[in-house]
Amino acid sequence: MAIRVGIIGYGNLAKGVESELRKNPDMELKGIFTRRDPSSVTTKTEGVPVYSSDDIPGMKDDFDVMIICGGSATDLPKQTKEYAKYFNVIDSFDTHAKIPEHFAAVDESAKGAGKIAIISVGWDPGMFSLTRLYSNAILPDGNDYTFWGKGVSQGHSDAIRRVPGVKNGKQYTIPVDAALEAVRSGSNPELTTRQKHTRECFVVAEEGADKALIEKTIKEMPNYFADYDTTVHFISEEEFARDHSRINHGGFVFRSGKTGFDNENKHVIEYSLKLDSNPEFTASVLIAYARAAYRLNKDGQSGCKTVFDIAPALLSPLSGEEIRAHLL
Amino acid sequence: MAIRVGIIGYGNLAKGVESELRKNPDMELKGIFTRRDPSSVTTKTEGVPVYSSDDIPGMKDDFDVMIICGGSATDLPKQTKEYAKYFNVIDSFDTHAKIPEHFAAVDESAKGAGKIAIISVGWDPGMFSLTRLYSNAILPDGNDYTFWGKGVSQGHSDAIRRVPGVKNGKQYTIPVDAALEAVRSGSNPELTTRQKHTRECFVVAEEGADKALIEKTIKEMPNYFADYDTTVHFISEEEFARDHSRINHGGFVFRSGKTGFDNENKHVIEYSLKLDSNPEFTASVLIAYARAAYRLNKDGQSGCKTVFDIAPALLSPLSGEEIRAHLL
Repeated sequence: MAIRVGIIGYGNLAKGVESELRKNPDMELKGIFTRRDPSSVTTKTEGVPVYSSDDIPGMKDDFDVMIICGGSATDLPKQTKEYAKYFNVIDSFDTHAKIPEHFAAVDESAKGAGKIAIISVGWDPGMFSLTRLYSNAILPDGNDYTFWGKGVSQGHSDAIRRVPGVKNGKQYTIPVDAALEAVRSGSNPELTTRQKHTRECFVVAEEGADKALIEKTIKEMPNYFADYDTTVHFISEEEFARDHSRINHGGFVFRSGKTGFDNENKHVIEYSLKLDSNPEFTASVLIAYARAAYRLNKDGQSGCKTVFDIAPALLSPLSGEEIRAHLL
Repeated sequence: MAIRVGIIGYGNLAKGVESELRKNPDMELKGIFTRRDPSSVTTKTEGVPVYSSDDIPGMKDDFDVMIICGGSATDLPKQTKEYAKYFNVIDSFDTHAKIPEHFAAVDESAKGAGKIAIISVGWDPGMFSLTRLYSNAILPDGNDYTFWGKGVSQGHSDAIRRVPGVKNGKQYTIPVDAALEAVRSGSNPELTTRQKHTRECFVVAEEGADKALIEKTIKEMPNYFADYDTTVHFISEEEFARDHSRINHGGFVFRSGKTGFDNENKHVIEYSLKLDSNPEFTASVLIAYARAAYRLNKDGQSGCKTVFDIAPALLSPLSGEEIRAHLL
């Protein structure tokens, strides 16, 4: 019998889960939960029931695992610990500084209910974190480097759109090639914020707006842009719609370390992602961990976990024999 | 108390374990076992006892984990299952086709003794296998690509040295840049053996040997060279010693897949290694998994495992709180 999966929320990430579940025949999408009026939601997949979030507690026996697709700022800190009382749950909580607090709250709730919760699943946190952990364990004497992009930063795009006179805006974070090459060479460079990334902004200005002032306001914005080399391009609404509708992203994680009795040998580990769709890739990671959550719970385990606690074999639909024969 | 580690064998890999254990303060090298006369072996580390392999069974309470550094062809198929009767063990068995058989034999032995054995640890099999497993679980609709090099192939170097008239030889496997770029673009190319790698040979010929014949013999050698574009350079013994004494290696693992309701989004996952010392890097991986073996066994588990079965957190000397705070 297929693993019965529910989706909580119906934004970009949730739609990614909806599309990618179809590539996993051992899993079945059994329902989508929304805070809106369910009758106002049209799903992309025919025949999938849409329920009100209010119905969640009453359906505890109808789902094996819930993928919670809320935002990290306000939704997930409430939702994950609440829904872990009823289901095995997965979230993509990405507010790094608040992970310990979120972990503790969810752990208490999941243990109380005998359920598994896996938090902070995605690519960063997620696959990038795994690369850092594996690489640090292998090369204790070394340095870590993380670069993001080229890709869309939602937070920086929002910041642009709050500038007076801006109608629409999108910001791409771009790793600096020279910095990537320096890290790749194993030279263990010290890199400033400005040396690692540039920021490129595409802005649709309102009719008659002062473009010079908009550009200055963006470039001098503290925290967001002031520490970076930032480029601002003004474009038309048509160009914006045509060229900047994708939610692509990606990045690089490096560990550069030394071995040998005299530390004479250098090693560079590099992991990179080039993603046309950030939400669909993140959704794909959530789905693999949903499988693991279901299996762990079936095995009698409970509590909050992260990607660090999950044996890789649990992510694969294949058997132990199959993965040893084909992937080892 | 530090984890008490023993090394079985004293070749390049074992010396790598010896040097890299010093970077792991939670572990202690308690002894090296050799089939030679122990008094003939001088270790690089002062004060480490050298024992005869014959003493292994009698020392079962003196070591928490043994890192077995024998060869895959004849040593490991015997050693790992034998020593798993006395200790938690790690090996780097890399004969892909024989992994299921090796796994079964070691599993029986380790289960009988209540010990943990982790086999096929290193980078391929090992870190490359993990990348394949994670990436396949995340992107079920996609293609895998593995490239090796630039690096020294021991098997191909041996093959060169067996050619009449060859005094010394070394072979480098080199991935073809155009193939790497095609895979990186997400175009999912079909690549022949010849399109993926080239082979570069450095040969010291014996005095008066027929170099044209040596070159022809190498280039036409079935399995090893005939399917590749191979270059042969004749060099002096001095050049060979000066430029070709390192045992560097590396490679690339890619997963290129699609997501979206209409499969409209491409994603490329890339993992790569650039290693100055193949044996020291492999040793570093073995050490991290030795830590995991010790912990799993302390937790009451037994039997044969692979990298697929080991939760990443078990590899790190840091606590769960620390890795969540610093690496997630």
